[in-house]
Amino acid sequence: MATLNDYDLRVARTHGEFTRHRHPETDEAFLVLAGSLTIRLDDGEVTLGPGQLYVVPRGVHHQPVSPDGAEVLLIEPRETVNTGDTPSNLTADRRLA
Amino acid sequence: MATLNDYDLRVARTHGEFTRHRHPETDEAFLVLAGSLTIRLDDGEVTLGPGQLYVVPRGVHHQPVSPDGAEVLLIEPRETVNTGDTPSNLTADRRLA
Repeated sequence: MATLNDYDLRVARTHGEFTRHRHPETDEAFLVLAGSLTIRLDDGEVTLGPGQLYVVPRGVHHQPVSPDGAEVLLIEPRETVNTGDTPSNLTADRRLA
Repeated sequence: MATLNDYDLRVARTHGEFTRHRHPETDEAFLVLAGSLTIRLDDGEVTLGPGQLYVVPRGVHHQPVSPDGAEVLLIEPRETVNTGDTPSNLTADRRLA
């Protein structure tokens, strides 16, 4: 984990389906470092491989899925909740981060 | 080029020695996508390969160098001047970006 001003740069290892959610207050960047990540959107989906970047605009529902696993760099403001407006059993306690 | 809130995410292709400079007002993140990048600091240097990230804190002099070339993702606030406080012939006109 690194910080850039008031942003977090976090490497997340994902596998399977994440909670569909949105962040009403911020954009969120996904940069795949290894593996493959698909981001399901309301009007389609985008699949990213290593070195590929996608920014989900604020307020847009998205569901990251990675059947085979991926290592992803997430870039977002420090206080961003990982499941946005949709609490689930995958919601991280950022106080522990 | 992508934007994340009021930040720019820019892929730069670097080769050779960049201007030594600092950004008094902001941190700056370097993520190498391909090749190898060395960042010279006043008290040492760090060399990054693909997938490796380094954040130069605000106010810290740094000189990116890449003898063999590198593709680098830069993350910084939108109005950041690429050569910081040190104008040079490498200073980009961000009005054209």
